[in-house]
Amino acid sequence: MQTLSENRAFGGVQGVHAHRSESCDCEMTFGLFLPEDAAHVRVPVLWYLSGLTCTHENAMTKAAAQGWAAEAGIALVFPDTSPRGAGVADDDAFDLGQGAGFYVNATQDPWAAHFRMWEYVAEELPALLAAEFPLDMERQAICGHSMGGHGALTLAMGLPGRYRSVSAFAPIAHPTQSDWGRKQLGAYLGADEATWAGHDATLMMRETGFDGPVLIDQGGADQFLELLQPEALAGAMAARRQEGVFRMQKGYDHSYFFVSSFMEDHVSFHAEALVG
Amino acid sequence: MQTLSENRAFGGVQGVHAHRSESCDCEMTFGLFLPEDAAHVRVPVLWYLSGLTCTHENAMTKAAAQGWAAEAGIALVFPDTSPRGAGVADDDAFDLGQGAGFYVNATQDPWAAHFRMWEYVAEELPALLAAEFPLDMERQAICGHSMGGHGALTLAMGLPGRYRSVSAFAPIAHPTQSDWGRKQLGAYLGADEATWAGHDATLMMRETGFDGPVLIDQGGADQFLELLQPEALAGAMAARRQEGVFRMQKGYDHSYFFVSSFMEDHVSFHAEALVG
Repeated sequence: MQTLSENRAFGGVQGVHAHRSESCDCEMTFGLFLPEDAAHVRVPVLWYLSGLTCTHENAMTKAAAQGWAAEAGIALVFPDTSPRGAGVADDDAFDLGQGAGFYVNATQDPWAAHFRMWEYVAEELPALLAAEFPLDMERQAICGHSMGGHGALTLAMGLPGRYRSVSAFAPIAHPTQSDWGRKQLGAYLGADEATWAGHDATLMMRETGFDGPVLIDQGGADQFLELLQPEALAGAMAARRQEGVFRMQKGYDHSYFFVSSFMEDHVSFHAEALVG
Repeated sequence: MQTLSENRAFGGVQGVHAHRSESCDCEMTFGLFLPEDAAHVRVPVLWYLSGLTCTHENAMTKAAAQGWAAEAGIALVFPDTSPRGAGVADDDAFDLGQGAGFYVNATQDPWAAHFRMWEYVAEELPALLAAEFPLDMERQAICGHSMGGHGALTLAMGLPGRYRSVSAFAPIAHPTQSDWGRKQLGAYLGADEATWAGHDATLMMRETGFDGPVLIDQGGADQFLELLQPEALAGAMAARRQEGVFRMQKGYDHSYFFVSSFMEDHVSFHAEALVG
């Protein structure tokens, strides 16, 4: 692992690190914010998964999460959204290939060789973090935005017991029934839709739900409402009697201005579960 | 004036607007955050002047100021840092020409035709804002980062009575004695150093000071300490018995991670003067 940069922030350190990933068979970069408390004790971890076109950097600079995390004594992990590099398959569309990993393990050519973001976020990166940083991996929570909200919800429900709480900003909520989903799941996982079911938050909510609290924020003026399908997830949460809150935020769109506006609430929500 | 974008943020609206500037003889773009209160009353204004290479956008997305401004009921203005466009003079160096206006009115060729950022920030943009938005121009304050800290301090001291309070993050504090200053003031204003004196915060602090509170934050691990010369300004503030606070923040560098870490303090400081 190589440290690319470290900036003091809110009494802690915002680092950017790169490493050779076995899962993705390429170099991967991630951001890690360590609060001041990490100098003395192992701190709990909040994962932030980003959306289409983002790298590790967007949320790290624009989501305004570090101040709240510093106050709560929580570390923040900002993984990249896909494998990258000259030898990695890509597509001209912004919503497929590099920058659009969709948090699945691809089984189809040309993607299968590198696009293993589920394994990377679920297995490889946690192991690296546990080995290299003063983190308490018994206390993890996860959140994300858009494609990253999809990732957060599907990982949380797909790995029972791993995360104490899950939240999402404008998640891609029902990808098996949306153009943000059918295209990518088809490309990465193939035509058999049975393999898609473990990557659709609405279907997973209907099937099992999440053993812990859920917080969803959705902008009412989001330009992608038709693609995100929040109504499917909200309905599934209510039908399951899922512990949680679904908030429709009037007038907010899909941008980081929306994310940063409610970041304090999300960090507080996770802090309640992690630090109590 | 043309509105390029509006995003709901922290209960208010982050807008980006463009207009034909007489001062700079080109189209200029600025950001304006209006808190929720602006729907009902004229709100006070905090100017944020940005540093070298920045546009109106950097601080708007990375300084994490809107949440605190929303809470205090204060508008934020994010001007660009120079005139721009194909017909505007430029230089290959990052610290001269477009993105590096230094908040002066250039008198020398090829800069004099467009580089009138002092007039733009002091006269033209305030008049436009007063005409177009629900702002209380009797209650203004100003802050900035790096070159923008230089701009904030020199405008505040150069326009007595205009701003109730001034603050800066890592300002270029003594440009007449620094490579960040001599090069630009020489290019824009010519070789007669007498014309530079009204654009050096340390000299102005020695000469007149500021009739109100001053807050300066400087990172102790700033990579540009030799160019910024904070010791000159700190000494001048103390020698004048200037009302104010100079803080050396151990371990912080020159980045927006530093700026955002202390933004809450700066907005609170200005809110005290503006809203009381």
